[in-house]
Amino acid sequence: MTPRIVAGSAQPCLARRVAEQLRTEAVACELERFPDGELRPVVGPVRGEDVYVVQSTGPPVNEHFVELLLELDACRRAGAERLTAVVPYFGYARQDRRSREGQAVGARVVATALAGAGAQRLVVVDPHTRGLEAMCDIPVETLSAVPAVADALAPAVSEQAVVVAPDLGAVKLAERYAARLGGLSVAVVRKSRISGTTVEATDLVGEVRGRPVVIVDDMVSTGATIEAALQVLDAHGVAPDIAVAATHGLMVGDATRRLGVASVRRLVLSDTLPVGPAPGLSLEIVSVAPLLADAVGRLQRGEDLADLLLGG
Amino acid sequence: MTPRIVAGSAQPCLARRVAEQLRTEAVACELERFPDGELRPVVGPVRGEDVYVVQSTGPPVNEHFVELLLELDACRRAGAERLTAVVPYFGYARQDRRSREGQAVGARVVATALAGAGAQRLVVVDPHTRGLEAMCDIPVETLSAVPAVADALAPAVSEQAVVVAPDLGAVKLAERYAARLGGLSVAVVRKSRISGTTVEATDLVGEVRGRPVVIVDDMVSTGATIEAALQVLDAHGVAPDIAVAATHGLMVGDATRRLGVASVRRLVLSDTLPVGPAPGLSLEIVSVAPLLADAVGRLQRGEDLADLLLGG
Amino acid sequence: MTPRIVAGSAQPCLARRVAEQLRTEAVACELERFPDGELRPVVGPVRGEDVYVVQSTGPPVNEHFVELLLELDACRRAGAERLTAVVPYFGYARQDRRSREGQAVGARVVATALAGAGAQRLVVVDPHTRGLEAMCDIPVETLSAVPAVADALAPAVSEQAVVVAPDLGAVKLAERYAARLGGLSVAVVRKSRISGTTVEATDLVGEVRGRPVVIVDDMVSTGATIEAALQVLDAHGVAPDIAVAATHGLMVGDATRRLGVASVRRLVLSDTLPVGPAPGLSLEIVSVAPLLADAVGRLQRGEDLADLLLGG
Amino acid sequence: MTPRIVAGSAQPCLARRVAEQLRTEAVACELERFPDGELRPVVGPVRGEDVYVVQSTGPPVNEHFVELLLELDACRRAGAERLTAVVPYFGYARQDRRSREGQAVGARVVATALAGAGAQRLVVVDPHTRGLEAMCDIPVETLSAVPAVADALAPAVSEQAVVVAPDLGAVKLAERYAARLGGLSVAVVRKSRISGTTVEATDLVGEVRGRPVVIVDDMVSTGATIEAALQVLDAHGVAPDIAVAATHGLMVGDATRRLGVASVRRLVLSDTLPVGPAPGLSLEIVSVAPLLADAVGRLQRGEDLADLLLGG
Amino acid sequence: MTPRIVAGSAQPCLARRVAEQLRTEAVACELERFPDGELRPVVGPVRGEDVYVVQSTGPPVNEHFVELLLELDACRRAGAERLTAVVPYFGYARQDRRSREGQAVGARVVATALAGAGAQRLVVVDPHTRGLEAMCDIPVETLSAVPAVADALAPAVSEQAVVVAPDLGAVKLAERYAARLGGLSVAVVRKSRISGTTVEATDLVGEVRGRPVVIVDDMVSTGATIEAALQVLDAHGVAPDIAVAATHGLMVGDATRRLGVASVRRLVLSDTLPVGPAPGLSLEIVSVAPLLADAVGRLQRGEDLADLLLGG
Amino acid sequence: MTPRIVAGSAQPCLARRVAEQLRTEAVACELERFPDGELRPVVGPVRGEDVYVVQSTGPPVNEHFVELLLELDACRRAGAERLTAVVPYFGYARQDRRSREGQAVGARVVATALAGAGAQRLVVVDPHTRGLEAMCDIPVETLSAVPAVADALAPAVSEQAVVVAPDLGAVKLAERYAARLGGLSVAVVRKSRISGTTVEATDLVGEVRGRPVVIVDDMVSTGATIEAALQVLDAHGVAPDIAVAATHGLMVGDATRRLGVASVRRLVLSDTLPVGPAPGLSLEIVSVAPLLADAVGRLQRGEDLADLLLGG
Repeated sequence: MTPRIVAGSAQPCLARRVAEQLRTEAVACELERFPDGELRPVVGPVRGEDVYVVQSTGPPVNEHFVELLLELDACRRAGAERLTAVVPYFGYARQDRRSREGQAVGARVVATALAGAGAQRLVVVDPHTRGLEAMCDIPVETLSAVPAVADALAPAVSEQAVVVAPDLGAVKLAERYAARLGGLSVAVVRKSRISGTTVEATDLVGEVRGRPVVIVDDMVSTGATIEAALQVLDAHGVAPDIAVAATHGLMVGDATRRLGVASVRRLVLSDTLPVGPAPGLSLEIVSVAPLLADAVGRLQRGEDLADLLLGG
Repeated sequence: MTPRIVAGSAQPCLARRVAEQLRTEAVACELERFPDGELRPVVGPVRGEDVYVVQSTGPPVNEHFVELLLELDACRRAGAERLTAVVPYFGYARQDRRSREGQAVGARVVATALAGAGAQRLVVVDPHTRGLEAMCDIPVETLSAVPAVADALAPAVSEQAVVVAPDLGAVKLAERYAARLGGLSVAVVRKSRISGTTVEATDLVGEVRGRPVVIVDDMVSTGATIEAALQVLDAHGVAPDIAVAATHGLMVGDATRRLGVASVRRLVLSDTLPVGPAPGLSLEIVSVAPLLADAVGRLQRGEDLADLLLGG
Repeated sequence: MTPRIVAGSAQPCLARRVAEQLRTEAVACELERFPDGELRPVVGPVRGEDVYVVQSTGPPVNEHFVELLLELDACRRAGAERLTAVVPYFGYARQDRRSREGQAVGARVVATALAGAGAQRLVVVDPHTRGLEAMCDIPVETLSAVPAVADALAPAVSEQAVVVAPDLGAVKLAERYAARLGGLSVAVVRKSRISGTTVEATDLVGEVRGRPVVIVDDMVSTGATIEAALQVLDAHGVAPDIAVAATHGLMVGDATRRLGVASVRRLVLSDTLPVGPAPGLSLEIVSVAPLLADAVGRLQRGEDLADLLLGG
Repeated sequence: MTPRIVAGSAQPCLARRVAEQLRTEAVACELERFPDGELRPVVGPVRGEDVYVVQSTGPPVNEHFVELLLELDACRRAGAERLTAVVPYFGYARQDRRSREGQAVGARVVATALAGAGAQRLVVVDPHTRGLEAMCDIPVETLSAVPAVADALAPAVSEQAVVVAPDLGAVKLAERYAARLGGLSVAVVRKSRISGTTVEATDLVGEVRGRPVVIVDDMVSTGATIEAALQVLDAHGVAPDIAVAATHGLMVGDATRRLGVASVRRLVLSDTLPVGPAPGLSLEIVSVAPLLADAVGRLQRGEDLADLLLGG
Repeated sequence: MTPRIVAGSAQPCLARRVAEQLRTEAVACELERFPDGELRPVVGPVRGEDVYVVQSTGPPVNEHFVELLLELDACRRAGAERLTAVVPYFGYARQDRRSREGQAVGARVVATALAGAGAQRLVVVDPHTRGLEAMCDIPVETLSAVPAVADALAPAVSEQAVVVAPDLGAVKLAERYAARLGGLSVAVVRKSRISGTTVEATDLVGEVRGRPVVIVDDMVSTGATIEAALQVLDAHGVAPDIAVAATHGLMVGDATRRLGVASVRRLVLSDTLPVGPAPGLSLEIVSVAPLLADAVGRLQRGEDLADLLLGG
Repeated sequence: MTPRIVAGSAQPCLARRVAEQLRTEAVACELERFPDGELRPVVGPVRGEDVYVVQSTGPPVNEHFVELLLELDACRRAGAERLTAVVPYFGYARQDRRSREGQAVGARVVATALAGAGAQRLVVVDPHTRGLEAMCDIPVETLSAVPAVADALAPAVSEQAVVVAPDLGAVKLAERYAARLGGLSVAVVRKSRISGTTVEATDLVGEVRGRPVVIVDDMVSTGATIEAALQVLDAHGVAPDIAVAATHGLMVGDATRRLGVASVRRLVLSDTLPVGPAPGLSLEIVSVAPLLADAVGRLQRGEDLADLLLGG
């Protein structure tokens, strides 16, 4: 049996590449958009098949999320035997808990709706929250593009380079990159009360003076976090050889300009989201298609995913 | 106990008017929009309350729908004792069944997600499909704005006027308007094989020559249906005194221009959706706030809604 | 793998015919009836099988519905791998919404109970309501017997004949018959306010004088609708060559006598329900067994049903 | 707040009596029966109320069960705040497990459907299986009419009388009657291999010679069990003073004749089911209305039911 | 396809024996126990497999139950295609209903949690309550070890022997043993009001004087029930040749000592639970591994279990 | 209405103190323990009440968890109107995701089972994972005992003291303590690759030389984390004035000895778990009873909890 790939409209070329790697054609999926903004997808024949709907829920996030719901429902009603939502970039992952009363837990709302629309399994790549798995009633496979992105970075990264986590939440990620890059040092930028009386001082932990740096994060959104980290790094005298790497390139707002101004030499992203041209930046895109195709193939054949997963 | 109104961002002034009529203040509800398009509502205190989230899911429909999901989840987690989604205009209602294999049943996807996010009851106004009630696991109250819209029409409608249904699906609606307007005649425009060999002939059933007409529908979307009906009516020699009435004014695309060109004299809509200026049209907006406030008040007090419902 | 047919007691010969067409034997299914009216079915071995329980829920509707629930539960507990309820005539379909407060939505109650008893998919034929699909949480395949019934009618239908819808709800159906019969004309009988002051006048839209007619409907229940339509047609001078066609032959109450008195020349029905002798009527029964067998075979092999479905 | 009683059609006078005892009027509930056997109940206003639908599911069991489903759905959609199914006689209780592969678990099918239709709590009287409570996802209150029936028996029961369980399953019940009747002896009729080689010998355990007997069971269905027990008792020389007591009087088939022939002097039943005239029998009916009214009142006021329950 | 056996820690050698009989290796399953008592199982690769987790929930019952929940969840998330909980001894089965207000229905709580953790089917052996099947939403296969235990007993059981049920609840079981042992007599010890005024007299039904006895029950827990039965049997002059047989050997508290003192000659148990040395008793253990392997093999191949089931 | 407190056996005096603060008596709750380890709670009358079952799931964690399931089921069946599980210490919280294939998500298994047993809301105190809220389908209120514990610490903490997070996961917590203690400095002990080649070097971030320290964590389990942190702190020359503070005192294994050897001067814990005597330690216990009583009172009255929550 061949797995069947349904390509949502968010990044159809990624889905097609996954299908190619699996030596199959993506299932036809037309998407009608009505003048009032309603969407109506029509998926090709999937009866009795093991179906994977590939759709990142990046901007416009609500459009892509609702489209995914409709595509899952369409596949379910069309008789898909097994139905997996492959959501390389999982939107609303930052809303993984209420930080005060009156808020929603957006990530769970999304997860619940996906299962409600028919998804029986979820595959994501480097989600912003590790809590995603526990939120979902359906099994979740949490893949990582870090090895692929790190390998793309590797050729031009010196042994002296330091991997920098732009905040505390990225420390584990930085350690993963550092290990994959042959055991580099890690440094952390943190905003907080380390030094006592000053409330919002930003500090750098780790030695970076005169060394090239690779700033890593799960995603680059507005670029503000990277920009702030670069100011701290500058103040600590890093070498003017700065690379930025992340799985997800949201690149919203002024992101391109910000990174350009900050003289980022290289920007390495995966294609979980479509990334437009980034004038003034040396942008490299690493495809997650091989990763997704490998995962889908194993799921379909009933094999372990262990080495593809984000892990610990 | 006072019912508590939470105003979604789709039409906040409607919600506020409902609250006013109930002599209460709408619960505070801020809506953060992140640069990547994610929404994060924060609702004010609703613990132990009987809460009504008022949000039409008109254009941009997916934004408004996801916002509503998040607001319901927020209210549920904040401890709302009872939680009702008041969705005056219910988007995706046209997708009430698959017209061919491979489609979704969008209306049900939406209904299921609303219940999954915490809605315990749904209140809608003149939905496009009467099947909505049976789709939902939660109780649905189907209100009608037809009496209010008809009453706004009435003063300037002559006894000679004919109420016109622009297609077969609108015949019952036309009969409701005709009855409320004092027993007017009804005519129907239909597209089909009445005359046999010609496949798509459009025909008019009923007598309209020399008489003023009121074309009625549940919604005015692009205006194309109205425009087509007017061509048929013209060919049958109606008087140049044309009014159009509908509950929902989507008014997307060229709607305003189309109706203007077609020399529609009056356009009467309710405020289930925000309607912008309609240059060249004599636009009258009838508020459904009294209807909604009446319904909410009765729900809260445990009274019958019978006379507010769409009925048969 | 062969699909396994379980024959409910409502129309066992239909189920057996379906099994025959699929070149398999129906699974044994005994039905014990206790003196107090309780039913206890025992189904034969179905462990690991793709099982289809064939049971129309026609009169006695409540008996047949509860029997179906029990048979589904029996198959589920006996280890059926996949379980489909094939309900050629779906009872309670008319209760698809509340026409006033205090009513139930009977169709949904039935649909919910079927899924609760273990049905994972539902197959129906020309249901009274198109809303059925959206009511069910499980996928629904809505087949149509119209082509088969129309083809049975065809040989003796003149090109001059008019297909008559006995009410507004049957117009689309009449158009389907007219198309299948080679592009006949359609006429519609309607009860309503077309002519203004008179409230319940019945009218005929379309030209029928001196022509033979084929009255079509989804079901013939008491025959009252047909009888009323015939009075109108008579008044409009139809030729005395009247055929009636429908998918479901409930034929309750005085139906046979009524149609006889009305000098219906031919009555063509399918065998979704058992139809007894109809003295005085020229009754032709078209079996839906080939349709059901075709659909079941495709479901089992994972093929499209597109051309078997009721459509738009 | 007053509890609201909705009377199903199975035994409306019982429901009315319950309402009376609670000093309220039963909610109006009309039941339409269509010519094809479909039911359509319409319940009166229950919005915001604490509603109890009283409906035994005795013969015709499938009719009464489906009616109950529809009434629960109607109440739920009409806005009942709390919804309890009061099912004094619970049909299908004997199908509480599969005695061989291929059977259904009918009692659970019924229980699941009731909860699916909206029941939030179930009240039953002396059900045939004590497993009912564990089958239901909703809380079940298992009342007992034994004290009431025993008290009705008491005046004419001699101290010498023996309470007889007609099979092993009725032993606990017999002990309950015996205790309530002031500590009478208990005897048991059993069918089995006590004596070894003979397979189906029937035996009597306990001393009955020359003594009056009271045969007790949860229900009298066809009377066959009682008849068989009486033959054994006769063979053991009981006095010709025989009473039969049970909570539920199904009295199907030849029951009346059988008990008459067997010279049963008294038959004491409750009114959980309507019992017709029983020519030749001295029939006494004890109403469970006070029991039900007491239970409903306490449920409504949030009080313990302990002394009304069947217990251990 | 081979079924995959996951061995819980309760009786791993039983699971291994089942795997051996199925000519497969048990899936690796490590169980970490943290210092605070939390358990963390890790199961080997099961993606796409038909998985059976074998774990009795005997003492320590809560530990074994929670471990089973975690193992089911682990298998589900690891991608098991089908997931069956094989629970040879099902703890909490005695709590199958509330005997008074304020109690839980423990058996249902356990059953619900197992299904919630991912079990899609349950296999049990001689459970204490026959209601288990109806409690579970998932299908339950109720196997019986009685034939195996009886066959182990048989060689040394004289034709004169009487099978004794130590209470009323065990009568059917005793009849099963008696039949399997070639048609022996059955006697019953019962505690109750048979003789009238004395409330708790214990009595023996059946003839045992001078004959060897085999006391049978579903489980031996503290041995108190057996001890009490033996006192009654002694008083009725049984021969000093006493065997005890049961499926489940809980053997808690003083059980070994009690049976020893009571001069039980043989104790035959199955290995649904691990049974330690029983000094002073002639203990024989009959493995249920062949029974379980047979059942699993048939479930996997889609065959009937009829002759392995507990039946009627 | 008064909230009703049901005290589980894990820490009954805490529950009683909560009840006292709410000026009510705890509902009677007996817990039978059978010889085989099964538990059977019996809760007092709770019909129609707003019930809070207070039970930490600390060691023996599986016993306390299963007991809580049974108590929730008991309350649900006894007619509790609203049912909240108050679980001050939530066991299995560390298993909030799979760190490799084959593991369970224990925290979710527990959360799902609690909701399945009837909990409608969950109240926890300083859970190990912030993901708990998103895991649960029911609303979760996440309280914090940090203010109470910090206030108990305060009098004897010098302004020079440094709050130490013993690992990265505790940094936010340390910042909370530092803020509450008047703006102290924070230092962090971390284990990782900061310095590059050495894989598991442990490092200290922040200045501690010659200063007193307060090590804070959410729980003290075996004390190993604290012990390791103290070795690092010693190496950095902290003053010999060491306090340890945590919400949950599991204190398993050698914890007391370890902390004693490490010359911890003060140990401040809350009473979410019972803490035994700690010879050689200056142990202070801060009760969370006022916190829980305040939260329960507000939940009952429908008030905000904002200032009691863990927040951001």
